[in-house]
Amino acid sequence: MPVPYKRVVGSPVVGDAAGWLGNLERRARLRAKAGLTRHLRPRAAADGVADLAGNDYLGLSRHPAVVAAAASALRGYGLGATGSRLVRGSTEVHAALETDLAGWLGTQRALVYSSGYLANLGAVRALTGPRTLLVSDAHNHASLIDGCRSSGAETVVTPHADPAAVGAALAAAPGRPAVVVTESVFSVDGDLAPLADLHAVARAHGAVLLVDDAHGVGVLGPHGAGGVAAAGLAGEPDVVVTATLSKALGGAGGVVAGPEALVRHLVDTGRTFIYDTALPPAVAAGVRAALGVARAGDDLRAELADRAAAIARVCGGAGLDVTVPRGGVVAVTAPGPEAAVAWAADCADRGVAVGCFRPPSTPDGSSRLRLTVNVGVPREAFDRALAVVVECAP
Amino acid sequence: MPVPYKRVVGSPVVGDAAGWLGNLERRARLRAKAGLTRHLRPRAAADGVADLAGNDYLGLSRHPAVVAAAASALRGYGLGATGSRLVRGSTEVHAALETDLAGWLGTQRALVYSSGYLANLGAVRALTGPRTLLVSDAHNHASLIDGCRSSGAETVVTPHADPAAVGAALAAAPGRPAVVVTESVFSVDGDLAPLADLHAVARAHGAVLLVDDAHGVGVLGPHGAGGVAAAGLAGEPDVVVTATLSKALGGAGGVVAGPEALVRHLVDTGRTFIYDTALPPAVAAGVRAALGVARAGDDLRAELADRAAAIARVCGGAGLDVTVPRGGVVAVTAPGPEAAVAWAADCADRGVAVGCFRPPSTPDGSSRLRLTVNVGVPREAFDRALAVVVECAP
Repeated sequence: MPVPYKRVVGSPVVGDAAGWLGNLERRARLRAKAGLTRHLRPRAAADGVADLAGNDYLGLSRHPAVVAAAASALRGYGLGATGSRLVRGSTEVHAALETDLAGWLGTQRALVYSSGYLANLGAVRALTGPRTLLVSDAHNHASLIDGCRSSGAETVVTPHADPAAVGAALAAAPGRPAVVVTESVFSVDGDLAPLADLHAVARAHGAVLLVDDAHGVGVLGPHGAGGVAAAGLAGEPDVVVTATLSKALGGAGGVVAGPEALVRHLVDTGRTFIYDTALPPAVAAGVRAALGVARAGDDLRAELADRAAAIARVCGGAGLDVTVPRGGVVAVTAPGPEAAVAWAADCADRGVAVGCFRPPSTPDGSSRLRLTVNVGVPREAFDRALAVVVECAP
Repeated sequence: MPVPYKRVVGSPVVGDAAGWLGNLERRARLRAKAGLTRHLRPRAAADGVADLAGNDYLGLSRHPAVVAAAASALRGYGLGATGSRLVRGSTEVHAALETDLAGWLGTQRALVYSSGYLANLGAVRALTGPRTLLVSDAHNHASLIDGCRSSGAETVVTPHADPAAVGAALAAAPGRPAVVVTESVFSVDGDLAPLADLHAVARAHGAVLLVDDAHGVGVLGPHGAGGVAAAGLAGEPDVVVTATLSKALGGAGGVVAGPEALVRHLVDTGRTFIYDTALPPAVAAGVRAALGVARAGDDLRAELADRAAAIARVCGGAGLDVTVPRGGVVAVTAPGPEAAVAWAADCADRGVAVGCFRPPSTPDGSSRLRLTVNVGVPREAFDRALAVVVECAP
């Protein structure tokens, strides 16, 4: 229960501040009416729940090598990085992780951030000058949208996964620097961007292609090097890759990978890099161990693909509207936000965690469950969980 | 050594993308000329360096209770939170940490973010509507500035620590919702904001006061509850506090603390909260242990104050221009960016890490060393390090 605030005495115009809180409360009531209230549901370390909700695609967050590497760095460095990367926060673990990331993703350099959100903000801003045109996919993640907005650059939002629309937007701004901004695997529906086509269009107009590969890295491409690598675009001089270290790599943080000159620019001028405390060394060490496992993990990726196909087969077979799985994410349509919440709650009651996506977290205003594969869940538990999802369908 | 990019064949207009990289390289050369190139210097776990550069004010990043709590949660939960807070990332550790933070800071609620940067972006945006006026201190941190910019709201930047100027800005916008945005202890010079005066001015105009207490929490106030608590403003309904968990608390992450209605609003609508992977449970657990030590750590704060005074006394006695210490941060003026870099490098050569702040990291375009207290450094090593700083002065 929240404690009541102390009464404010002798403050004649505190009414406006109280009005601010009253306004927030009114808006909360409107959201409640629309079925858009969100609740934090803390989980225990061993809750016995089958995870069809998280982004731990390869199950590496609990991999013994990952936990051991993190524990070792924790003992060596302590918990926090104790400063920004440029002041006191860079450790040998960060440097080694960046070398490994660049090698894996096939770029000249990689720069680690404390989150994927900050990596995306930094990447978009670094690529944007006063005359730059940003061409952004309609389904892009909030961090990319915020990056476009905060850059101040003119932004054209193109229909989802539509290279022709991107080409038209670029053609309408001849001679201007431009950046095409997309994800590889889209986070809600799990569909793939047409990266090769987008790159061809971008290159034909001299634009840079920025790809958020958060849901592709570890999951797609040769040695799991991601959606960009799968499209044959690794190391292209006009392609910049961002990703999280918190999904298939089981940890936390983000990365911008690309040309040496870009990383140098970010180190010298990137506000979300310079003015942020570094990722904890223990997290960087765990992620680095996870990268090693993921790189060699073709067996994990085969199992992941098999389970994603099972989701589509079982849900589709039950008459549910389901997306085609391309990575570890499959979406199942719900009739509305309240039905989605009830569906997810019924699953939770039966020990199955699923993602429940409602506006404003969905790109099109509709609601759905998002089912994700975590190959760390035993196969029998996964199969049972899938049956529960179908049985609970509205 | 960066690998050279493969030659691009058959791409007639790749010149523009190459032009983009060429532009970045030109700008890098201009920065080099101006002495503004930055270098990452990875440190080893045990580098024998005396830390006068980081933000680990109470030395808690290596405190045995902190490391043990983090290690225990690492074994229990694995490395990453595996999802955003609303999907799969909230654990019992996050919930317990938020309860403890609210209790310590004296607010109704507290909400943990994966970084202080994202907490500040989220807080500013949550407090901003279409008509809101933001009144922002000239020395505010980049994350607050970015929050103001990305909110799209009209922002008036007032002279540093100037309640009269804040009052004038508010008086010029009668009847409009407004937010006064400040730090408590400013990050570069270590000086204090006049929080009580700022609050009086804000309240007189019905404005909300948003205080980034990143360098005050753990260091100032009763039980280390921060600069806001020290000013007697804890729990006021028109005050919102943000902070990092990466400085005196020795970990990583950020927090927004304030009224219940604000936190509910952030959970339902805050983009940098909803769309970001949660802080790793192990980090949250370590920070929670650190909070317990910090809360009971009046002895640590006494030692910190004594050392900060020693920095001012020794540097001032040597004829250096030094700020008055209020928390754990003291700034010493350097003649210019290159002199600051050389000074810091000389200190590093003699085993002393100091912060080197140059434009654009300084609020006034001048350069200085920033010396910080870490009470985890043995006192003799600290005293020797201080002597080295003076001996290396240009």
